[in-house]
Amino acid sequence: MANDTITAPKGFLAAGVHAGIKASGQPDIGILVCPTGARAAAVFTTNKITSAPVQVSRQHIKSRRIFAVVVNSGNANACTGRQGLKDAMEMCRLAAALLGNKARPDQILVASTGIIGHRLPMDNVVKGIETACGQLAATPSAGLAFSKAIMTTDRKVKLAVRRIVVGGEQVTIAGTIKGAGMIGPRMATTLCFLTTDAAVSSALLARALEAAIDQTVNRLTVDGHQSTNDMAVIMASGLADAPPINRADGAYRRFCRALLELCQDLVVQMGLDAEGATRMFKVVVTGAATRSQAARAARAVADYPLVKCAVHGGDPNWGRIICAVGSAGVDLNPARLSCRLDRIWVFRNGSPCRFDRAAASSVIKRPFHTITISLGVGRQSDFCYGVDLSREYVTINADYHT
Amino acid sequence: MANDTITAPKGFLAAGVHAGIKASGQPDIGILVCPTGARAAAVFTTNKITSAPVQVSRQHIKSRRIFAVVVNSGNANACTGRQGLKDAMEMCRLAAALLGNKARPDQILVASTGIIGHRLPMDNVVKGIETACGQLAATPSAGLAFSKAIMTTDRKVKLAVRRIVVGGEQVTIAGTIKGAGMIGPRMATTLCFLTTDAAVSSALLARALEAAIDQTVNRLTVDGHQSTNDMAVIMASGLADAPPINRADGAYRRFCRALLELCQDLVVQMGLDAEGATRMFKVVVTGAATRSQAARAARAVADYPLVKCAVHGGDPNWGRIICAVGSAGVDLNPARLSCRLDRIWVFRNGSPCRFDRAAASSVIKRPFHTITISLGVGRQSDFCYGVDLSREYVTINADYHT
Repeated sequence: MANDTITAPKGFLAAGVHAGIKASGQPDIGILVCPTGARAAAVFTTNKITSAPVQVSRQHIKSRRIFAVVVNSGNANACTGRQGLKDAMEMCRLAAALLGNKARPDQILVASTGIIGHRLPMDNVVKGIETACGQLAATPSAGLAFSKAIMTTDRKVKLAVRRIVVGGEQVTIAGTIKGAGMIGPRMATTLCFLTTDAAVSSALLARALEAAIDQTVNRLTVDGHQSTNDMAVIMASGLADAPPINRADGAYRRFCRALLELCQDLVVQMGLDAEGATRMFKVVVTGAATRSQAARAARAVADYPLVKCAVHGGDPNWGRIICAVGSAGVDLNPARLSCRLDRIWVFRNGSPCRFDRAAASSVIKRPFHTITISLGVGRQSDFCYGVDLSREYVTINADYHT
Repeated sequence: MANDTITAPKGFLAAGVHAGIKASGQPDIGILVCPTGARAAAVFTTNKITSAPVQVSRQHIKSRRIFAVVVNSGNANACTGRQGLKDAMEMCRLAAALLGNKARPDQILVASTGIIGHRLPMDNVVKGIETACGQLAATPSAGLAFSKAIMTTDRKVKLAVRRIVVGGEQVTIAGTIKGAGMIGPRMATTLCFLTTDAAVSSALLARALEAAIDQTVNRLTVDGHQSTNDMAVIMASGLADAPPINRADGAYRRFCRALLELCQDLVVQMGLDAEGATRMFKVVVTGAATRSQAARAARAVADYPLVKCAVHGGDPNWGRIICAVGSAGVDLNPARLSCRLDRIWVFRNGSPCRFDRAAASSVIKRPFHTITISLGVGRQSDFCYGVDLSREYVTINADYHT
């Protein structure tokens, strides 16, 4: 069976264990290791309140080589003051020690996800890291165990892999991501871990990661906010037999395209598994005066609870879409404003269209549909992904007690 | 029994009837008349897409005297093109004709609320206006009938009345408002109709209305958006025995205070009856660099679905509050950031507090509680009202089919 986990690229080991951080008994400590040291790049949340692991990893990513990422779920280690910083650094120190004398603590990244404002149960964390380090393997089941260990309210494990040929040799990129709430597309929402055996230079790796995240993870809004703990990391072992990628040439563009596709794959998995979500949609805004206005209008539609509820109900309620666009504070021409659901025009040049309601409803009831809006004032466009709002979302978030 | 409806001030007649616009058989045409002609002021939605009645009323409010407001529920007459404008003007023309030769069509205001993008069923509307004009009365039941006729998904009629003494004589102010969805505080959200028998000059009336709406209706967010049809109108008959209010003196300040209190009363009624809402909260942000940053942070907390869900669950999940503040894009000092629920400190100077969770939970479970956040960077403050997010909200809005 082909390995479709983050251990698919050459040079990575992983593990995931239950250390008792989550009361549910589910896995809650994951370790991803590149024993030879990886070039790495990362993007972090833009929330002004950042978790301890984000603060620590922001420093550590400056190291030329990264040997591992240590992740816990079930506790965000955010708003935990100096003790939280000490705990995050202790996780790095312990992992470095267990991995042998090559790795320094500042060459380990750390990430956490879960409840805000509680100190990590360090006894469990330490034991979990020790156990996980003893189980490190390059097998698919080890990669899967890592992906399970980063889940919070996710119902499904999220995995994606892409293979490309560089200089006649295979290069592999793999990734995993967690949802499923606090998803807003302002920067590196959620935790996302990517591995590759391509030998890409650090600068090109950072550019590729930023571009891919910008067009995928950062475009998904579930509930309009980014968390204090968001982080996306890519590690490149450089162990593929392919020649190194040190210039922005054809091989680099193929690498970027594969990384983008992989992230698109992950973001759709994340959207469809978002808290309470039953379907996903893309909002495309065209004819805008500026690209940022197009992005703002798309985001306003995707975040508007009444649109999300209408999508949940399979209802082609375009009036709510127009209302959201009108209140987004962007330039628009009411006489040229138009909207379609996939290919079905529902509103054109400022007037309602006659359309087949049953057909429009069945478009909306697909797992994925596209709402296209033209503002009629310019030539710029942008997009955003959204999900429906269900009773289940409320149940999950009203009952997830501190 | 004291009249607590919009016919309480001297000089107003009202009626409300079922004209068949709503399939439910509920009242859907309301008329509010000041036979002697009233000074009036209004504020309208800031949505760039405005309904036909908003466009018409924006013109008509420029008339020195307003004789009536005609309102229908069940259909917003928005996104209905030129035909919609003709229909809205026809409603004014018909009402003016039925009220006798004193009133011109441009002295009638018109308002609509309901589904967007459908032409008004004008046969029903015409018949409804005719029937309503035949039932006009100054009685409490006539005032109540009007308030019922403006309801959409509201469960309760919303009424408020205040009485003050000016120059030894009683002056009455009354109001009614409708909710219950598409509530965002950027301007004159919802439909709100206010009457008074005070003889207030038009300019002072406009100032009083804007100030009162700004501090009340515009501070409530249910789902973060304002509709295409929002409008708040005040009509002053001037028929009280009290001396006229032509200057910004003590009598005017008492009038303004009473109007503000009345609008606060209405906005709390509206919040507690918002779609699916079971409780309401006020977010106060202090220590901000600027007042607009304080307002933005307050709004971010009140609109954040995870905070709304936590309030619904009675959960003192302050981590979500801090997360929302951090992503609001405002200046803050993480080391001085603080938060309390009514009087219970949950987070102070950047660190979690030990607090009685049961006591905090019981604060949240009250019909109304206050979340106070200090950003720790300045001296400015502002506030916003919010409501919880329930499964019922989703049910209402996923099943409200076009």
